[in-house]
Amino acid sequence: MGKQKKFVEAITAMDVDFAQWYTDIVKKAELVDYSSVKGCMIIRPYGYSIWENIQKHLDQKFKETGHENVYMPMFIPESLLQKEKDHVEGFAPEVAWVTHGGNEELAERLCVRPTSETLFCDHYAKIIQSYNDLPKKYNQWCSVVRWEKTTRPFLRTTEFLWQEGHTAHATAEESEKETIDMLNIYADFCENVLAIPVIKGQKTEKEKFAGAKATYTIESLMHDGKALQSGTSHNFGDNFSKAFNIQYTDKNGQLQYVHQTSWGMTTRLIGAIIMVHGDDSGLKLPPKIAPIQVMIVPIAQHKEGVIEKAMELKDRISKVARVDIDTSDKMPGWKFNEYEMKGIPVRLEVGPKDIENNQVVLVRRDTREKIFVSMEELETKIAELLEDIQKSMYEHALKHREENTYSAKTLDEFKDIAENKPGFIKAMWCGDRACEEKLKEVAGVTSRCIPFEQETISDKCVCCGGEAKHMVYWGKAY
Amino acid sequence: MGKQKKFVEAITAMDVDFAQWYTDIVKKAELVDYSSVKGCMIIRPYGYSIWENIQKHLDQKFKETGHENVYMPMFIPESLLQKEKDHVEGFAPEVAWVTHGGNEELAERLCVRPTSETLFCDHYAKIIQSYNDLPKKYNQWCSVVRWEKTTRPFLRTTEFLWQEGHTAHATAEESEKETIDMLNIYADFCENVLAIPVIKGQKTEKEKFAGAKATYTIESLMHDGKALQSGTSHNFGDNFSKAFNIQYTDKNGQLQYVHQTSWGMTTRLIGAIIMVHGDDSGLKLPPKIAPIQVMIVPIAQHKEGVIEKAMELKDRISKVARVDIDTSDKMPGWKFNEYEMKGIPVRLEVGPKDIENNQVVLVRRDTREKIFVSMEELETKIAELLEDIQKSMYEHALKHREENTYSAKTLDEFKDIAENKPGFIKAMWCGDRACEEKLKEVAGVTSRCIPFEQETISDKCVCCGGEAKHMVYWGKAY
Repeated sequence: MGKQKKFVEAITAMDVDFAQWYTDIVKKAELVDYSSVKGCMIIRPYGYSIWENIQKHLDQKFKETGHENVYMPMFIPESLLQKEKDHVEGFAPEVAWVTHGGNEELAERLCVRPTSETLFCDHYAKIIQSYNDLPKKYNQWCSVVRWEKTTRPFLRTTEFLWQEGHTAHATAEESEKETIDMLNIYADFCENVLAIPVIKGQKTEKEKFAGAKATYTIESLMHDGKALQSGTSHNFGDNFSKAFNIQYTDKNGQLQYVHQTSWGMTTRLIGAIIMVHGDDSGLKLPPKIAPIQVMIVPIAQHKEGVIEKAMELKDRISKVARVDIDTSDKMPGWKFNEYEMKGIPVRLEVGPKDIENNQVVLVRRDTREKIFVSMEELETKIAELLEDIQKSMYEHALKHREENTYSAKTLDEFKDIAENKPGFIKAMWCGDRACEEKLKEVAGVTSRCIPFEQETISDKCVCCGGEAKHMVYWGKAY
Repeated sequence: MGKQKKFVEAITAMDVDFAQWYTDIVKKAELVDYSSVKGCMIIRPYGYSIWENIQKHLDQKFKETGHENVYMPMFIPESLLQKEKDHVEGFAPEVAWVTHGGNEELAERLCVRPTSETLFCDHYAKIIQSYNDLPKKYNQWCSVVRWEKTTRPFLRTTEFLWQEGHTAHATAEESEKETIDMLNIYADFCENVLAIPVIKGQKTEKEKFAGAKATYTIESLMHDGKALQSGTSHNFGDNFSKAFNIQYTDKNGQLQYVHQTSWGMTTRLIGAIIMVHGDDSGLKLPPKIAPIQVMIVPIAQHKEGVIEKAMELKDRISKVARVDIDTSDKMPGWKFNEYEMKGIPVRLEVGPKDIENNQVVLVRRDTREKIFVSMEELETKIAELLEDIQKSMYEHALKHREENTYSAKTLDEFKDIAENKPGFIKAMWCGDRACEEKLKEVAGVTSRCIPFEQETISDKCVCCGGEAKHMVYWGKAY
């Protein structure tokens, strides 16, 4: 690799400055560009094709589980936003307001949706009459706006893309089941498609969604030891249905309030992919989400038969993988670096000598291992290799998380870890908001979740020494 | 059909009140619902699944022809919108303005995008440097906002969904070719997928897009004789690249301005499907775009073996068509009407007698013809039938357009047709804007396009009697 190093000098090493490394990657891998609109990003073709793959996987899962896509207006009248008290308190301070249409001032301000619970509720109140109309399981793909002071591409932007599921059910049991089912779909997607291990759990009262009875979350750990909330699923119970009067007639002719959920995943998942898998040569994409899985780089391509052979291989590989070829007149070294930066899982090199030896060279992006493969075995080996890369990227990320997850029994231990060892801290909690706030104050961490898989670290709250109620994951978060 | 008529009474006959008929269909086929936001519609699952099919077809075509998807911010700073003079004049009067973010007033107003030329230009100016960077062929799927006074679902709403392609090329020839290529993709899509015949042509100076050198259009004719602009493709030449300073270094090291295009299709296509194909029983969907192509209605389903047989048929049909089944306890008559209202191309009836006779009944939505098919031939016959329906719906629409297209040589003839015969009027035009305006004033029509396929109706302008330059399609339009 010595000779090629010069091409990648421009990217900051992650251990030197993780934030700058992140910014370098999103720019150099051509995922985003900054726009003239403060806090808004342009998602470029390569970044958008990753999002399209995320959409494809999730949308299929949503449909398989009986959800239907719809489209709600992007505007919410101020009076509608105000119907659920906690919800408006949570969102009103960070919305964008439309005050003029054409040349006229509007009689009522409209906010650009920060999330669409109020619109779905307004619609559900109209279309739900009887138990026959339930459940309603809707989803929409759209963009939302939250007025942020400091922004970073994918992680926190004024406008971002997401999907928001909104469902209505006859009973509390059904809405609870839906909330958990969707969390499980999110977790499976992260682990099996994005190769990102997640902790499933419940948010504390302090951290839950504005208007929810319970918020469930999946939390992942980035390379720098910070946590990222990667997907959330909320059970509203009848909070919203009472505020919006969404009632149905049950089988006994009685009026009942519906029980609702909402759940969402966003473009911040692309930030997670970068920060979990990336290295100092750039992005590393798990094969299942990579827009291009195999990039063919012909060697000494001016020599007779090289490009022809490379094109022939491309045709063959296209039957088992998403493959592309670079026949531009740039140097192979430049191409190697470019496609490492873009995180393409496998590079295939083929030149005159390889053709003579009836073989090609495959180079793994994750381990940089070089593998010589005979032409005959190409399709089989590539399919196997992609599977192996997917698996080993997950294991690599899991190992990193395990190595950076700590337990603390005392407040001193807790503070020491928080200060010196970036990662998750597992510690017991009494359930008191005061302790949660104190840990934030003295150690700079927030509760990430009360994991479904509980452990007993001790029987006392790490903060006040009172009786422990839950084991909680704590951490600094994006 | 006699007995079932009572179920469809609620829909207004199209000949009685076409506008009301349209509104009835969009509501009763559950395509849209009105929202609390003036002028904005909710696209319900059935309507949205039609849009998803439109997206799937077009997106595939765009990608096959080398276009890449991106995502631009939904906001445009006022100063950016103002960079191209004609463009801002065309759009500024009809945009929504964001003036506050959170609790603060913005230093500069942001408009919610009515279209994104200015954002793409701003981005292209940054990323295009050399001839190596060209062409850039981008597209985005998003929603846009235009502040409309009077709105109708799909046809004219304050917010609507669309795709907008934006490309940059090295030469004027290339941008002209792209503009026409995309118009052809739109025309093929309308004719082959939506079964809607279109007239391809160029817009007059008066009717072209704000900022374009040339606008091309496809125009279709609705059942009531009104025209619908169904897709447009604009060649900007270097109008925008000069305003935004988008230059590249050519092979000789000279700085050159790029040549640009944009093109779009919107959810109004769903309005076209309704108004071209629908009838007094509801929607009629061309098979290629129908979310469900075959609906199975079991007859006497309480009898032994009926539902089992129907489910077995569903499995078999699912290999050749998008199929669903209704086993609810509603009456078959109710189901027939419901799926006619929803425009499902084929209804399959199967009951105890059919099973005994080893046959099923297929009913075409377009002609209401009943066809008895033996169980063995089911897959073949359904595939053939769907193809035949697709073809005959196109022919039916083409015949309607031909029967409602008139020629006028004199102004009196022209006025008479415009007043008494809803449809297209073909007439010669001198090319003078004054004549175009006069025809609008005296006959209430606008120029729809100067068709690529010219005919000579006479050698004089139908309005002023001066020398004719073009044959033009005129009409009243949505």
